[in-house]
Amino acid sequence: MNAPHPPPELEPDRVVRELSSSRIRELRAIVPGDRLVLDKDGRARYGGDESPLEPVPPAAVVLARDARDVAAILAFADRERIPVTPRGAGTGKVGGAVPVYGGIVLSVERMDRLLDIDPGSRLARAEPGLVTGRLRDAAEAQGLYYPPDPNSLDTCSIGGNVATNAAGPCSMKYGATRVHVLGLDVVLAGGERLTLGRLTTKSSTGYDLTSLLVGSEGTLAVVVAVTVRLSVLPEARRTLFVPFSSVSGAVDTLVALYRAGIEPAAAEFFDRQALDAMSRVVTIPSGAEAALLFECHGSRASLEETLERMAGVMGNRALEVGVARDGAALRRLWDARKEVSVLVKERYRWRRTEDIAVPPARLPAIADFLAGLRARTGLDIVTYGHAGDGNLHVNFLYQEASRHDDVEQAVSALFRRTLELGGTLSGEHGIGATKRRFLALEQAPALVAAQKRLKKALDPHGIMNPGKIFP
Amino acid sequence: MNAPHPPPELEPDRVVRELSSSRIRELRAIVPGDRLVLDKDGRARYGGDESPLEPVPPAAVVLARDARDVAAILAFADRERIPVTPRGAGTGKVGGAVPVYGGIVLSVERMDRLLDIDPGSRLARAEPGLVTGRLRDAAEAQGLYYPPDPNSLDTCSIGGNVATNAAGPCSMKYGATRVHVLGLDVVLAGGERLTLGRLTTKSSTGYDLTSLLVGSEGTLAVVVAVTVRLSVLPEARRTLFVPFSSVSGAVDTLVALYRAGIEPAAAEFFDRQALDAMSRVVTIPSGAEAALLFECHGSRASLEETLERMAGVMGNRALEVGVARDGAALRRLWDARKEVSVLVKERYRWRRTEDIAVPPARLPAIADFLAGLRARTGLDIVTYGHAGDGNLHVNFLYQEASRHDDVEQAVSALFRRTLELGGTLSGEHGIGATKRRFLALEQAPALVAAQKRLKKALDPHGIMNPGKIFP
Repeated sequence: MNAPHPPPELEPDRVVRELSSSRIRELRAIVPGDRLVLDKDGRARYGGDESPLEPVPPAAVVLARDARDVAAILAFADRERIPVTPRGAGTGKVGGAVPVYGGIVLSVERMDRLLDIDPGSRLARAEPGLVTGRLRDAAEAQGLYYPPDPNSLDTCSIGGNVATNAAGPCSMKYGATRVHVLGLDVVLAGGERLTLGRLTTKSSTGYDLTSLLVGSEGTLAVVVAVTVRLSVLPEARRTLFVPFSSVSGAVDTLVALYRAGIEPAAAEFFDRQALDAMSRVVTIPSGAEAALLFECHGSRASLEETLERMAGVMGNRALEVGVARDGAALRRLWDARKEVSVLVKERYRWRRTEDIAVPPARLPAIADFLAGLRARTGLDIVTYGHAGDGNLHVNFLYQEASRHDDVEQAVSALFRRTLELGGTLSGEHGIGATKRRFLALEQAPALVAAQKRLKKALDPHGIMNPGKIFP
Repeated sequence: MNAPHPPPELEPDRVVRELSSSRIRELRAIVPGDRLVLDKDGRARYGGDESPLEPVPPAAVVLARDARDVAAILAFADRERIPVTPRGAGTGKVGGAVPVYGGIVLSVERMDRLLDIDPGSRLARAEPGLVTGRLRDAAEAQGLYYPPDPNSLDTCSIGGNVATNAAGPCSMKYGATRVHVLGLDVVLAGGERLTLGRLTTKSSTGYDLTSLLVGSEGTLAVVVAVTVRLSVLPEARRTLFVPFSSVSGAVDTLVALYRAGIEPAAAEFFDRQALDAMSRVVTIPSGAEAALLFECHGSRASLEETLERMAGVMGNRALEVGVARDGAALRRLWDARKEVSVLVKERYRWRRTEDIAVPPARLPAIADFLAGLRARTGLDIVTYGHAGDGNLHVNFLYQEASRHDDVEQAVSALFRRTLELGGTLSGEHGIGATKRRFLALEQAPALVAAQKRLKKALDPHGIMNPGKIFP
């Protein structure tokens, strides 16, 4: 299970654990019936997410039906200074949806309609609660493509993806959520509704508040509709599994591919510990210290040519080049991939997963650092992630609770090394409640102060998701 | 020549036409020698840009050498409440670099170094004055690619591109400047220096101030360094010229190409008036009402396949499909393209060019509107642009000054129709000084107010490029 996380530091006088009966009456008038959840079990269900943070039941849960509900709740909460934690599907990894200050959880799970899809202009509009996989399916039904592919594609919602700027393997080629979002309908803390952005792929009209809102983790506004552009659906996909005798061999190969004009859609990375798990299902050549799992997109004919050229470029660098030429081979690769998840999720009593990113050329330096950490601490550390973006998920795995402190120190050392190498604390999960105590390692006080000034300009009373991102 | 533009509306008490001798002494101490320009001719050279706005000589010009100069000038100007207009190469189309409030023009033209290029991580860092074409060349020397391709590639600077979120034909495939900028070193109005963004392609750490700054037209901060990611350089390019019997035929063809999984790098649009000019150089089939000039990127082998598939998709829709198979054919196409520029720039006494964007499916509606406007007003209107992004440059051409007012009304009608169709006032040029009186047509008062609050959070005294974007 997730290693326990130290409780968030709070300003006690801003915590709202309970609402008075008069405030509850007001809430009932705004959101009658089952849109207001007050019973203990119901509130408990909205206290946690997929982060290691201890769940915190809010004082009330609102299941908004539409933008009017959202606006009325935010106007009320702003007037009464009640913290509001927006919530999508609750699949976040950093506690962004955990209402650490209590108050109201504002769930948009019922706002889950696909509002519009326009193949001629390659646009789709959706309510924030729409599951991302359904948006992808709707695009594919029109012969188009919504590229962001977080692991939680079938459970996460587009609103949550906007909140964290979610990404995934194919962000290597297509970019994270932000580049696909053209516009947002949002509600500010006081209940004011704004339509941000536009329906066009290009615009140079005013400040790009859309991009500012994407990745702001519910601390600036509540999103009530998302407009995304759709991409061209690749005609075909090919998967290659390529083991290397070193991490630097893998990274050098990526660079050689770029220089040959080849851009895979994804280049997933596995370290030796992950490969050990995969070897239960597929043959891993001896001496393999790392592997890349490529996905390539294109037309059927061009992909055959691409694979040939990739094999040519990788020839001397790789231990072997395995192209999954049929469904069975592909399934075996994904089964092997699943073994890594099992290893990380089931074989140990405790785990702690961190999400960092470095410039890709520095992946070998991170690998060296982790090898040293492994040797020094005796902890099992399994790393995989998205090599093309230098984004690694580092898993610290152990059996004894007595090692919690060692892991905390190891994580802290990992962050420091990541930042020394020009990296960032989060590649795709966000900062939320779990990483905010580390933010000052990456961002100068002046930068944090500037962000807080911007937040105050949109949320003067600080009701929007307090306790997140900023220390 | 450019039609005259009404002078910008100003708040008179904020205008600074002259600096006192004590302030000039202070400036001299901060930027000694030829970094400070005070003579009349020198100041006049920094009063205008490529917009139709009447040049306005500033009270002083500073040619900053480095970030320290920028910080010292901004600290001084903020304390003294002197307007500062940042300036790159002065190639802007909307008066963004025209110091309408006087004060100081802060030019970064001498800050033009390429700071770093890292092929392993596909990164480049540059000072803001670097000419964009030089950045592109430096990337290509490493086998990589910096995609944004404004027309002014060989004269505009990367800092100006950041200010306007500049784009170009190939933004259809690769996106405008914003998606390529990973980080910015900036100086705020008070002289405070911030490093925004990161060196990684993905990050979910804090607010994306980088994206907020891109497109903010110098109203939030001065950029002193730009970090961009580099893309994979296409091995080969092919150009196709395809005339259609209607605008909707061209747009339908684009959609059909997308649905066939084909994504051209560029799809440049020309209306019949533009084709008439091109017909001096290339044969335009009779009945052609529009044409698309495609550029396709890929490997040599895959491009041949792509062209075949495009010809298949376009077969019945196009009047003909002309692939430029050799250098001579390609040159002829570009010569024909140049005829359009000559038409627009030389054959008429007056011209007014506007830059709008609509969702691509609505291009036929804009074409219908322009046909009606042409019939109603008798004005010559020539339109070309970037069909894939729905971004059109509409040129109103005329000989008599007596028609200025008619043109002003026609432009206003064009903007209204653009917005009715879900479009935006600017696809790639920005709002600057020339379009700010139209901003309220597109943006609700609450949205303008929110942007002004954000500006105030970063520039409390309003010294940064006043008179731009917001009415």
